[in-house]
Amino acid sequence: MSSSPFWSARVAALSPYVPGEQPRVDGLVKLNTNENPFPPSPAAVAAIAAAASSLALYPDPASTDFRQAVAEHMGLPIDHVFAGNGSDEVLGLTFAALLKHDKPILFPDITYSFYPSYCKLFEVDYTTVPVREDFGVVLDDYSTDNGGVIFANPNAPTGLGLPLADIEAFLNRNTGSVVVVDEAYVDFGAESAASLVSRYPNLLVVQTLSKSRSLAGMRVGFALGHPLLIQALERVKNSFNSYPLDRLAIAAATAAMRDTAYFEQTRQAVMATRTRMTEGLQALGFEVLASQTNFIFTRHPQHNGKQLADALRARKVLVRRFDAPRIDQHLRISVGSDAQTDVLLAALKEILG
Amino acid sequence: MSSSPFWSARVAALSPYVPGEQPRVDGLVKLNTNENPFPPSPAAVAAIAAAASSLALYPDPASTDFRQAVAEHMGLPIDHVFAGNGSDEVLGLTFAALLKHDKPILFPDITYSFYPSYCKLFEVDYTTVPVREDFGVVLDDYSTDNGGVIFANPNAPTGLGLPLADIEAFLNRNTGSVVVVDEAYVDFGAESAASLVSRYPNLLVVQTLSKSRSLAGMRVGFALGHPLLIQALERVKNSFNSYPLDRLAIAAATAAMRDTAYFEQTRQAVMATRTRMTEGLQALGFEVLASQTNFIFTRHPQHNGKQLADALRARKVLVRRFDAPRIDQHLRISVGSDAQTDVLLAALKEILG
Repeated sequence: MSSSPFWSARVAALSPYVPGEQPRVDGLVKLNTNENPFPPSPAAVAAIAAAASSLALYPDPASTDFRQAVAEHMGLPIDHVFAGNGSDEVLGLTFAALLKHDKPILFPDITYSFYPSYCKLFEVDYTTVPVREDFGVVLDDYSTDNGGVIFANPNAPTGLGLPLADIEAFLNRNTGSVVVVDEAYVDFGAESAASLVSRYPNLLVVQTLSKSRSLAGMRVGFALGHPLLIQALERVKNSFNSYPLDRLAIAAATAAMRDTAYFEQTRQAVMATRTRMTEGLQALGFEVLASQTNFIFTRHPQHNGKQLADALRARKVLVRRFDAPRIDQHLRISVGSDAQTDVLLAALKEILG
Repeated sequence: MSSSPFWSARVAALSPYVPGEQPRVDGLVKLNTNENPFPPSPAAVAAIAAAASSLALYPDPASTDFRQAVAEHMGLPIDHVFAGNGSDEVLGLTFAALLKHDKPILFPDITYSFYPSYCKLFEVDYTTVPVREDFGVVLDDYSTDNGGVIFANPNAPTGLGLPLADIEAFLNRNTGSVVVVDEAYVDFGAESAASLVSRYPNLLVVQTLSKSRSLAGMRVGFALGHPLLIQALERVKNSFNSYPLDRLAIAAATAAMRDTAYFEQTRQAVMATRTRMTEGLQALGFEVLASQTNFIFTRHPQHNGKQLADALRARKVLVRRFDAPRIDQHLRISVGSDAQTDVLLAALKEILG
């Protein structure tokens, strides 16, 4: 890597996140970035068309309509809701606003690989806690003194979820620092900690509209927490970018949050396909972790992970693999449409011979 | 202000930017946030409609199509272009990536009031340099040793521009730190420093599509600079938010950059209205600074600034005023449509009796 005397000191020390590939090629079966196989709610698409006439005007910097829709969906007052440009931005602001303290924060060693990138950017000390042999996050392992705790529930890339009772028990023990539950995938079968927000002033729950609301292309996420936590996020946001959500994102996200019927229908369909995909993979000899997300984390005891991923790619099927200790033999495969699942299973059958 | 032990230490010390009011009331003549009176290019609106079918998929994290359109417009290679979620985000990333050094940075005392907010967030030391008696920025005044220099050209809220020759002379003197020229308003009659980017490795030029491309509601900005400066911005961006531009923003911004005919037509129309507005204000006794932007900075020698702004508001005309030393008697009034200008001038005539 080149560097430059014009760079601020921390720039060379960063470890930027590498997102899953977004190839600009047609005809791929794209199961590498956990996108939803269904389009967004028709109400969201209609809201975009209606809002497109007023783009010369700034958006509402507070994203009030969207936050109100989230608040109603969650049964919380609007001052418990923060909105951002995707949950990635919400998480970034959270590291700056709530997780930078004198003591190191804690997160699992196997989890969303963006967390260390945020830590490097905002100079947050961290200690990783190993997940157990079965890849489970066990909150008893997070009992050391800390500047904050963040974990994804369900976790990525494992897909494993924690019972809400475990999270509540942890909140009763860990009262001196902020606990962030990153619920990007929670709508595919796990239990949200949103119901605990009004009772635990140190709990922040982060969600996204990218997965269960089919709006990855629109970049909208939110956080739920005590108003004092939300105010900290707002103070940092308004020191960085007053208008992170554009008019079309606010309109689409508001409509998507309000269309609960479509939300229910599509997430149930994704979960049904996940069951079929799990059974298909198991029939081919794959070991499959019990997923509560819209992806499956799997390995084949007799086949090398990288070779499998490469062979799938040669058949125009993209999956994600991580060159990291303990998981380098695994594939993370998004739950696509039924047709994409058929292509995936047929390709694997051919590869395994 | 309340605080909380859960806040990171710097949160309480922030001074968040306060954007111009975005009232949720109909029937206002809104001349307070320098929005363009013309809608965006019809090509941009059509591009949004075409892109709305693929929102379940993530956008291109590198915003390649948009950066390519900017590169072609500017006659620069694409590796000289960085894209962000509005020029506010681009500026924020610039403070983190290129302006945080051991020495204080320099900027004018009267300028875009977001700069001190960024400095507080990223802990950047700064020294403000007074603008001259006539509100002019004179780059000879920036000759002290520094960690970077940032100025808006034309400056806000004064509307005054600098000749390109002055900027180039300064770049020849100030070679040891990054010089950021914030050109949010440059398309309304000033000279862009974009033509200098390929010759000065420490020059970063920042522009927005909010003003001259009528896309304030879409949040798109960009920076032009040497590839090493762009790489620093990318490293920070990818440590914060991989996908700051959504699919519709990329589509709209790409189309808007390519529709040069519409861009020329609308910016010329805004400048023509500015002339008419200037003459109308002068006929009412206002002192008007020579604007190279889509707003006018003005005061009336016999009338109090706050009283004028309040009287306009009572007539449903919003303008912006700053409670700051030296400029608290001035009004900053956006150049709106011809019809809005008529309403403004009639209201002022009535107020002045």
